[in-house]
Amino acid sequence: MKKILLLIMDGLGDRPNKSLGNKTALQAAEKPNLDYLALNGATGTMSPVSYGVRAGSDTSHLSILGYSPEKYYTGRGPFEALGLGIKLEPGDIAFRANFASVIDGKIVDRRAGRINGTDELSRSLETEIDGIKFIVRSGVEHRAAVVMRGNGLSDHIIDTDPHITGKSPLNTIATDHEGNFTAMLINKFLERSRKILNEHPFNKKRVEDGLLPGNEIMLRGAGKIPDLENFEEKYNLKAACISGTPLIRGIAGLAGFTILKVDGMTGRIDTDYKNIFKSALIALEKYDFVLINIKGTDIAGHDKKPELKKYVIEKVDQEIQPFIEKRDDVLIVVTGDHSTPCSYGDHTGDPVPVLFSTDGILYDKSSHFDELSVSEGYYKITSNDLMPLIMSYSDRAEKYGA
Amino acid sequence: MKKILLLIMDGLGDRPNKSLGNKTALQAAEKPNLDYLALNGATGTMSPVSYGVRAGSDTSHLSILGYSPEKYYTGRGPFEALGLGIKLEPGDIAFRANFASVIDGKIVDRRAGRINGTDELSRSLETEIDGIKFIVRSGVEHRAAVVMRGNGLSDHIIDTDPHITGKSPLNTIATDHEGNFTAMLINKFLERSRKILNEHPFNKKRVEDGLLPGNEIMLRGAGKIPDLENFEEKYNLKAACISGTPLIRGIAGLAGFTILKVDGMTGRIDTDYKNIFKSALIALEKYDFVLINIKGTDIAGHDKKPELKKYVIEKVDQEIQPFIEKRDDVLIVVTGDHSTPCSYGDHTGDPVPVLFSTDGILYDKSSHFDELSVSEGYYKITSNDLMPLIMSYSDRAEKYGA
Repeated sequence: MKKILLLIMDGLGDRPNKSLGNKTALQAAEKPNLDYLALNGATGTMSPVSYGVRAGSDTSHLSILGYSPEKYYTGRGPFEALGLGIKLEPGDIAFRANFASVIDGKIVDRRAGRINGTDELSRSLETEIDGIKFIVRSGVEHRAAVVMRGNGLSDHIIDTDPHITGKSPLNTIATDHEGNFTAMLINKFLERSRKILNEHPFNKKRVEDGLLPGNEIMLRGAGKIPDLENFEEKYNLKAACISGTPLIRGIAGLAGFTILKVDGMTGRIDTDYKNIFKSALIALEKYDFVLINIKGTDIAGHDKKPELKKYVIEKVDQEIQPFIEKRDDVLIVVTGDHSTPCSYGDHTGDPVPVLFSTDGILYDKSSHFDELSVSEGYYKITSNDLMPLIMSYSDRAEKYGA
Repeated sequence: MKKILLLIMDGLGDRPNKSLGNKTALQAAEKPNLDYLALNGATGTMSPVSYGVRAGSDTSHLSILGYSPEKYYTGRGPFEALGLGIKLEPGDIAFRANFASVIDGKIVDRRAGRINGTDELSRSLETEIDGIKFIVRSGVEHRAAVVMRGNGLSDHIIDTDPHITGKSPLNTIATDHEGNFTAMLINKFLERSRKILNEHPFNKKRVEDGLLPGNEIMLRGAGKIPDLENFEEKYNLKAACISGTPLIRGIAGLAGFTILKVDGMTGRIDTDYKNIFKSALIALEKYDFVLINIKGTDIAGHDKKPELKKYVIEKVDQEIQPFIEKRDDVLIVVTGDHSTPCSYGDHTGDPVPVLFSTDGILYDKSSHFDELSVSEGYYKITSNDLMPLIMSYSDRAEKYGA
């Protein structure tokens, strides 16, 4: 039985970039170690979730780890909350939230002039009503997440965001009896929030400065946290996660991974690549399965910066080198969770390259780790197939039959 | 409409073997005819059951023939019984069984000192209780199968094997009302068996020789035989099976295949390859679909003998030659049911090569029949996809739509 390193470069898949001579970031990068692993490994393309799906990091990581998003993806609310670093507990109901601007009872801007720095506003809204805790956390610009914690909550309620301007913000309504208690609480929370936001110095200051106030918090995408079967029990693998990204840490945490801290890990381009891979090498002594998520490739893709994406890949390539000689004991798996082409600036449904490298398995003909080279490889899979292949290549799969 | 030869080389897939210059058995073998069929055919890789699944011959043959193992694989008991050549009938309940050693009421060895030659013991246990027949058949070493035949039986009962030593052997218990009658009968059978086994001359002789007796028969893996839809009706194909392996004959028999006898066919390395293929050629006059299973490749894989695996492939290659010129009327399909790499000595989740060769279809670029060459071919499929492709390439598939 072998140990497993699963390296996910977020948004790894790319499309041709003019500034890189019409190459993808992977094709353009100097990456002798990743190429060595592709040459000495089985490779292929992997469609995250399924063919043509523009997967998010949430749905793709669920699928990669063996939790079908169809079953376990319970909506944007819980995953937005995880992404903002809120530790969710069973029974919680989570929402995506917007700070919006309401004047004379009508929504004039659903994004409150792309308001920024709303931490104070969020903190002022946190409260407890009838034994139920409301947790509010600010995200980027107007975005936030709201979590309700306590007994008897339900997600059978409608959004309070009418999704257009010129209308009054809504109170929520339960979609059936089960949602009554929750709907009543939310409407109390909204009434209280409107008073606080309208009188909040942060908003008064904005109005004085000629900016729109964030005086309404609109809720949508209500969902329960998914009840993931414990990864360790599901696969009999002691698992650890190394990621600077709250969303990934949140999902791994729900699956029962140990979340490791690494000095200098930022979840940004400027993260400490050396320390991340050093920590993973040490973690493999104690854990059977170590998941690394590197966010920089995705950030560069969203920012449309092919040179930066190439840079992140080259940094990763340098640091993965010490794992090469461990392949008698360790299965190395490298892939992406989705494509974020620099030319597109957002996730696409393109497949990502994947490689499996360890001693003794059959290596296929592809000799480079990039989107095109690995398409000559052994596999054309979706992310649902990844864990079974990992279990098989690490000599951990049970025989099905005789 | 064409006739179909489906040749399954059991455990065909391989990994690099040092003694073969780091080639797989297929890569190392001289096999001009199989290569000709790959060159003049469509090829690909096929993952038995699904990607990364370490399929057994039972689950993979079910899947290959179009019977989803998820639905039809009813546990190890029935398939162990089929493998020992017991002809199962609808309503039968089958178990895997162990001869174990019990001293002073405690299990001291679950395998009775890896006892051998238990045919006499098995025969002595066969009986009829309250109208229910008990059929007992010995397997390799301590292994056996027990089948109960009669009306009103159920598999809703627990194992009588406690799976550890130092404990008393268990009687069974029904897991619900439906299992009561069966549980009562099994406990009567066990009580009777204990008396017979303790007094059996075979066991007395073993004790005199200082060996552990096989004085307890422990049951596990209870299951009903799967109710397979008749292959002939499902596909409108008159089908015959040529295999020296009881498990394969058993599965094909459940599906309604005619089971052909071939002189000199042993299910071992020393089988009569010439006669097998000669019989298949004759059978194709009468039958639309002939399944050949060659077991030698799997045996060589389990025994970690790459040269032997290569030898079996070369024997098969010689004998398939006469089919080449029949390809105006016959679709030839060659594949494995799973990989049994010689370097690993057991089944792995690696894909196996597959080829479809007949006149008139589009041939792909691969020109050799081995794991790597066919990975450049037309298909990356799972075994669930095989029968639809066979039906299509033999001009037998019905149009889906207009």
